[in-house]
Amino acid sequence: MVLETHQSVFIEENSPRDGIQNESAWFSLDERISLIETLAECGFQRIQIGAFVDSRKVPQMVDTEKILDQLPHNGKTVYSALVLNECGMGRALASGIKHVSYFVSASDTHSRKNTNRSVEEGIRSAFRAIPMAKSHGMAVQGGIMNAFRCQLEGMVPPERVLRLVQAFTEMEVDEINLADTAGLAHPPQVIELIGRVRDICDTPITLHLHDTLGFGLVNAYAAWNVGVRRFDASCGGLGGCPFIPGVAGNIASEDMVNLFESMGVRTGVHLPGLAVVIGMLRDKLKHPLWSRYGSLSSETAVNKGFM
Amino acid sequence: MVLETHQSVFIEENSPRDGIQNESAWFSLDERISLIETLAECGFQRIQIGAFVDSRKVPQMVDTEKILDQLPHNGKTVYSALVLNECGMGRALASGIKHVSYFVSASDTHSRKNTNRSVEEGIRSAFRAIPMAKSHGMAVQGGIMNAFRCQLEGMVPPERVLRLVQAFTEMEVDEINLADTAGLAHPPQVIELIGRVRDICDTPITLHLHDTLGFGLVNAYAAWNVGVRRFDASCGGLGGCPFIPGVAGNIASEDMVNLFESMGVRTGVHLPGLAVVIGMLRDKLKHPLWSRYGSLSSETAVNKGFM
Repeated sequence: MVLETHQSVFIEENSPRDGIQNESAWFSLDERISLIETLAECGFQRIQIGAFVDSRKVPQMVDTEKILDQLPHNGKTVYSALVLNECGMGRALASGIKHVSYFVSASDTHSRKNTNRSVEEGIRSAFRAIPMAKSHGMAVQGGIMNAFRCQLEGMVPPERVLRLVQAFTEMEVDEINLADTAGLAHPPQVIELIGRVRDICDTPITLHLHDTLGFGLVNAYAAWNVGVRRFDASCGGLGGCPFIPGVAGNIASEDMVNLFESMGVRTGVHLPGLAVVIGMLRDKLKHPLWSRYGSLSSETAVNKGFM
Repeated sequence: MVLETHQSVFIEENSPRDGIQNESAWFSLDERISLIETLAECGFQRIQIGAFVDSRKVPQMVDTEKILDQLPHNGKTVYSALVLNECGMGRALASGIKHVSYFVSASDTHSRKNTNRSVEEGIRSAFRAIPMAKSHGMAVQGGIMNAFRCQLEGMVPPERVLRLVQAFTEMEVDEINLADTAGLAHPPQVIELIGRVRDICDTPITLHLHDTLGFGLVNAYAAWNVGVRRFDASCGGLGGCPFIPGVAGNIASEDMVNLFESMGVRTGVHLPGLAVVIGMLRDKLKHPLWSRYGSLSSETAVNKGFM
């Protein structure tokens, strides 16, 4: 399903989940569906459509099952959802979704805030949930939050991340996601961790990079340089963890698409189509977006040689 | 004067010139001097303090001689200024400034808009101005505007840039500045041009990168990866060419400093000091700055583990 060549990258679009979960403007089910459908039309092969989490804590993620039911299932787009525990995995299985991202945190402090458990409890939970999903034929991405540097604990020892990678490998996940949840990683750190993960497994690596310090796209480029071909991004640069105040959003999908396409690396995503999504988000959110392409597409620069 | 090691980079601060030249808020001489002095205290070894250009066309650059006269000359900071023609070089010589950046454009269309001359006329002008300056002991950086992609002409053929590099080498400039004036270059293009310039000369290369597409810091990192150790940047991400509407500012100095320092690469610049400059600029300009560190330093994230 995931096509990779030297001259292409695979971008999972996260705005319907990570993107809107932190926004104060309320997204109705119809608005979430419309956003996902528009993103699918832009060419994203995989879209994270929601999360099977406690909607009392993350209200925007309510009724992800209903979203899935109402989306077209034409085989072109893989719908994925975030899962954080066995309860969520049960809901995912019941919903019929074919792909999930199961995340644990590499930082105890963050893990307790985000999921009310230690890292070790997170691993034990994954060992119960993921094999069950795999046995039902579901594709599972094993994700590690705060894989680089935690805003609460500082630098995360790579050994702790590698222990989680090892566990995910034993669970036979289809993909490892290394998440810079707080957006504090820098390129040499990203490159080093990728190398160490590859030393112990050959599972494909996805990077989920936030842009708190403005290093998001630099880290993506650095990772691409060492062969990473799968990335998460979020239209309009939206996103952030509800349990880490001050963290910035994801890399803006449009800026990532623009970078790779400029370099001659295919993304499969139709860049001008993303201007439509940016317009939808801007109308809805009524706050500035951290998106260079978004700034250009809304200003005088359009048709002046920049795009 | 310029110290370079594998683990350090040299950043020339451009906010007092490229930064403020495009701003509608008027900077008095005292404000320009105060900005420069504060930047010098932050540790920048070289600061572009103004330009010897026609102040009817670029009003903020008026009286650069007076700025130079009133700045402290303690040997710690090199003051530089932009020069575009023989007349400007005459003023530079008379002012007693020790370092200038002499720029020509690699794009005929931009050259005519910016300096009312063709590229060839620009080269001939440089051949008159630069040897005169060198014979008076002045250090000269030879700069090439639109060295990568012109918003008006599209991709700039590397051969045209190399012809300018060759000319600058014959003039024995101390440094070559490759400027992405419109902010449209991408990393492979930057790496390729650096390689081709090095094939014909061993003059140190400085990069001047705008951030129109959000690729500024990515390009800087890519260039650093192939050994470039000199960069221009501008506090607050200010800047832009008055003759290219829609172009975004330079890479924010604070984000560049933060990136390199995070990587263990010394810049000599005191990052928290830049927060003071950002505060000054924000008070003066009353518009948002495209600066991640600036966003953090003004919001709740301070003292929450991000900085």
